[in-house]
Amino acid sequence: MPHFKLIVAYDGAGFVGWQRQASGTSIQGLIEAALAAIDGREVDVAAAGRTDAGVHALGQVVSFTLQRAIDADTILRALNAHLPESIRVRAAQEAPPDFHARFSSARKTYRYRIWNGGVVDPFERGRVWQVPAPTLDVAAMARAAACFEGQHDFAAFQAVGGEAQTTVRTMTVARVDVEPRDRDALVTFTITGDGFLRHMVRIMAGTLVEVGRGRRDAASVEEALVCRARTSAGRTAPAEGLFLVGVEYEPSA
Amino acid sequence: MPHFKLIVAYDGAGFVGWQRQASGTSIQGLIEAALAAIDGREVDVAAAGRTDAGVHALGQVVSFTLQRAIDADTILRALNAHLPESIRVRAAQEAPPDFHARFSSARKTYRYRIWNGGVVDPFERGRVWQVPAPTLDVAAMARAAACFEGQHDFAAFQAVGGEAQTTVRTMTVARVDVEPRDRDALVTFTITGDGFLRHMVRIMAGTLVEVGRGRRDAASVEEALVCRARTSAGRTAPAEGLFLVGVEYEPSA
Repeated sequence: MPHFKLIVAYDGAGFVGWQRQASGTSIQGLIEAALAAIDGREVDVAAAGRTDAGVHALGQVVSFTLQRAIDADTILRALNAHLPESIRVRAAQEAPPDFHARFSSARKTYRYRIWNGGVVDPFERGRVWQVPAPTLDVAAMARAAACFEGQHDFAAFQAVGGEAQTTVRTMTVARVDVEPRDRDALVTFTITGDGFLRHMVRIMAGTLVEVGRGRRDAASVEEALVCRARTSAGRTAPAEGLFLVGVEYEPSA
Repeated sequence: MPHFKLIVAYDGAGFVGWQRQASGTSIQGLIEAALAAIDGREVDVAAAGRTDAGVHALGQVVSFTLQRAIDADTILRALNAHLPESIRVRAAQEAPPDFHARFSSARKTYRYRIWNGGVVDPFERGRVWQVPAPTLDVAAMARAAACFEGQHDFAAFQAVGGEAQTTVRTMTVARVDVEPRDRDALVTFTITGDGFLRHMVRIMAGTLVEVGRGRRDAASVEEALVCRARTSAGRTAPAEGLFLVGVEYEPSA
């Protein structure tokens, strides 16, 4: 029974998120339905990151087993023929039987995109969080983001009701960049880590925007890490600015 | 009665095009409805380029007269509050009474975007023409595009049934560029001219892709210009790859 690894990109607008739900269209549901049509029986797939409604992916990783002998190229073509254009399988390959998109992953990278300026480019709608003028203090945001690097208890950056057994995670990269566009700017927050709590990147992004607006300072981010209370961090930024950029695995995986 | 000039960007997907039609939603119709709500009476607007269904704009120019005394900043904000997010007014300013978005324009620039590779980026869907592998011969396309520069009779590059009184136009820039993206490429054809016939840029793009595929050579483009028959040019490329980039006016306009 061949086992596969896919790299999938999707525009999360209009979906209830990665995971199958009682109602609404999920990315998982569409991929499983397409694989069932290919394999002739029900297929369960696992994903590296269970993205929320409206969250996008450039490099989501998906794993599953089929019963039919079928090659990876055929799967890629058949899936893209079945799936809507808003979901594209970018790559497919056979994987070792013990490969699991989530449990085998070593690190994931997310990017949060913030439109800081006047009128939002209509081609960016649904793909940015619109934070109007004044101009964000990007240097202060970058200093605050650096506090996330290393091993910390991120309990303050977890949605209320999060079910993680431990809230300690290690972030290897946390940076803020700015791309000037005429009188506007696209500010991006990019973070790589070994695991993420529920809404963690969105709470980080919301907190960083408060820093960028001068409503809190970088020290308050360190304090939130220490005091571990959700109320010590900022608001949760909207889903539509968030992208799962990619997933890293150890060379053996 | 104040007279205005707008710069408007829109994602053309889902619209019947710029121009009001008997049925379906047009960009003109939505802007006129929003202005009617602001001015308290019917308003007619003119646009520099009457883009077809599915064609996009980064810098469409629109002109109109209102009866109310109202400043340009207020118009910009009120229009963006009324319009869907797929249409954004990027700038608004008062204009001389004789300014007409179309008749005053000196040159327009269009860009045609071609996705040449494997799987289309889902964030580019509806914004590119997908031309699968093999890789287009971009150098040959650039040589062919250069034939469009200067004053020519573009009768061969006009949709059958086009109603232009003269088919002679002057192109000041016609270039082909390529932006590598992993194993894919985004090939763009950018053209600036003093006027464009019906479907002219799309027929040019379709012809250039035939050159890029080796199905015709650059000389055949010159021949099409000379023989003036629609059948001597290539197929019409789909609307969704076309963008109206911007419009130039003489300094007095």
